[in-house]
Amino acid sequence: MIITLTTDFGEFYPAEMKGVILSINPHARIIDITHSVREHSIIEASFLLYSAIDWFPENSIHVCVVDPGVGTERKPLMIRCGETYLVGPDNGVLIPSARKKGEFTVYEIKKRFFKRISSTFHGRDIFAPAAGYLSGGTSPEELGEPADEWVDLNILTARREGETLHGMVLYVDRFGNIVTNIPSTMVEDASFVHLKSSKLPLVRFYEAVPPNTPLAIRGSHDFLEISVNRGNARKLFGLKPGDKITVRLEW
Amino acid sequence: MIITLTTDFGEFYPAEMKGVILSINPHARIIDITHSVREHSIIEASFLLYSAIDWFPENSIHVCVVDPGVGTERKPLMIRCGETYLVGPDNGVLIPSARKKGEFTVYEIKKRFFKRISSTFHGRDIFAPAAGYLSGGTSPEELGEPADEWVDLNILTARREGETLHGMVLYVDRFGNIVTNIPSTMVEDASFVHLKSSKLPLVRFYEAVPPNTPLAIRGSHDFLEISVNRGNARKLFGLKPGDKITVRLEW
Amino acid sequence: MIITLTTDFGEFYPAEMKGVILSINPHARIIDITHSVREHSIIEASFLLYSAIDWFPENSIHVCVVDPGVGTERKPLMIRCGETYLVGPDNGVLIPSARKKGEFTVYEIKKRFFKRISSTFHGRDIFAPAAGYLSGGTSPEELGEPADEWVDLNILTARREGETLHGMVLYVDRFGNIVTNIPSTMVEDASFVHLKSSKLPLVRFYEAVPPNTPLAIRGSHDFLEISVNRGNARKLFGLKPGDKITVRLEW
Repeated sequence: MIITLTTDFGEFYPAEMKGVILSINPHARIIDITHSVREHSIIEASFLLYSAIDWFPENSIHVCVVDPGVGTERKPLMIRCGETYLVGPDNGVLIPSARKKGEFTVYEIKKRFFKRISSTFHGRDIFAPAAGYLSGGTSPEELGEPADEWVDLNILTARREGETLHGMVLYVDRFGNIVTNIPSTMVEDASFVHLKSSKLPLVRFYEAVPPNTPLAIRGSHDFLEISVNRGNARKLFGLKPGDKITVRLEW
Repeated sequence: MIITLTTDFGEFYPAEMKGVILSINPHARIIDITHSVREHSIIEASFLLYSAIDWFPENSIHVCVVDPGVGTERKPLMIRCGETYLVGPDNGVLIPSARKKGEFTVYEIKKRFFKRISSTFHGRDIFAPAAGYLSGGTSPEELGEPADEWVDLNILTARREGETLHGMVLYVDRFGNIVTNIPSTMVEDASFVHLKSSKLPLVRFYEAVPPNTPLAIRGSHDFLEISVNRGNARKLFGLKPGDKITVRLEW
Repeated sequence: MIITLTTDFGEFYPAEMKGVILSINPHARIIDITHSVREHSIIEASFLLYSAIDWFPENSIHVCVVDPGVGTERKPLMIRCGETYLVGPDNGVLIPSARKKGEFTVYEIKKRFFKRISSTFHGRDIFAPAAGYLSGGTSPEELGEPADEWVDLNILTARREGETLHGMVLYVDRFGNIVTNIPSTMVEDASFVHLKSSKLPLVRFYEAVPPNTPLAIRGSHDFLEISVNRGNARKLFGLKPGDKITVRLEW
């Protein structure tokens, strides 16, 4: 059974999560989605899991821990969506993925896996062992109990007003490509996208414009992206996950 | 069966490639070679695969995607070299590895794995599924057809003129060690290597010179490398993959 | 059987180590602890292994290569601690983990695994194959012989003088959290920790103070840590692994 990990932990801490998981279920297959989420960016992490989840088998367990409130009263959650489980803190980070899967049931993790639980690393002390046991066939009822309340998060908030689209930045990748939450369908037949003082051609692939030219494109996750062919749109436009973005379409 | 991944994608996108592969072949073993290739550096990626390939079992599949031309007419390729498969774009990145393996046959991938193929992420939509099916025993003939033409790339271009060697930088590692394409055999009995205005002793190990001293060394991939003991040669000499490099030998 | 890897190699070189291991033992499970140890920081690497080792099954093999002396006469080692093996250079990096495990036997690796051994990459040419064979059941006696002498390293050197604690920085994580070698038990009942000119509250979780406020906390590895809630203590205090740190307690 596949367990994926999405965190803002950097390189070292996830290894301890893997040690915990493999100590519980030596047969788990662990796949890193990323551990480089912008520190504390619940929005970015929720988007990355929301995007990646489609490409994994249904019977996978997805652990997502971006958790600035670790150690406070915020609940640790498991969410069952059909055959898929989501595991992480109750700060909304799991919810866009849960909604995408359809019907879901939220559980609070109640089981105490270790005698000492740190107050700064629930990824290792709570979420990893929960995922390990779920992957071995333990039911969520044995690990916790249904939760009636949980923190909601909606990242699909883009809206259109005439020619103008109001959205949000969800992710900026290594190339500086800016992924927005504006669905590709909202820009389907436009020719240009105005962003700040720039008029960007809406193209089908990067090389449709000369090197170092900014462009707009329907990205591989079905959202509008802002890029620079062989260059870096982040450096040009200075946007980061969570920033609001307003663009105007031209036909 | 082992599938290796070499890309310039950074941390997140390779996870979706892994999800695709494991959805097709749950038994594939996926090993990351690197996802930190300098953005768009076909030369660096081709060198890293060329170097790594020797250390993996023959019946491995190596996916290498540095692909600035993604979405254009450039062909997606599979190359069969004995028991080994190489998978990636037709921009030369696979060719040094194919030539190293000896006889090889180039195929264009023709199969459409998904209803929608993005124009920016063929790593996920074309190359990962091709590798997944090959790893499960599907033949390349079922996934595509032989290609007569493909883009060539030769990274083994160093040449000697008397005491002078003309080469190219292939890779700069995390320590700032500069890996050239000058074969170690070309410098075998020299005592010094002159680079720009520096006279570097050709040593057998880093600690043969004092800390922060530049040096030349026959590297672990059988090419001449420029280093600084416990320091950083990249910072000192300012070289990057693809740059020309000229050195003069002294005995 | 699990083989973990801890190095300062960055992203590419560990892949060749994995190829070597899997060529010897195709069933080995390889887990990266980190490859981003601060270059040449034996102290940091020894701490990370020392911390991670508790979370892995006993019958694991831990390879740790931070090795500025590679190619010199320094010995390559295997250490047997009960069911656990440690593999790496004789520069002390393995010793804190060995001592934590209790009784241990040190072996020098004598076997020559390849015709050519590079003088710069023993991770691939000596340590990876040793781990591969050990994971397949080869005994350490077949790969080397007991070593009477080896370089010691003690990272647990913190001491108390009245209200003052003298320690060392072991690790600075991605968030800028500064992990010291001062055991949490040494600060158990204090209310404040004075560091340089700052008076830091000793709290139970990050959110106990407002954003951007520095704090002290008993960390998830049972050492005192210096943090900034939603901020970066490294940037504020400018400390790195190996630096001495002196704090004063207040009740």
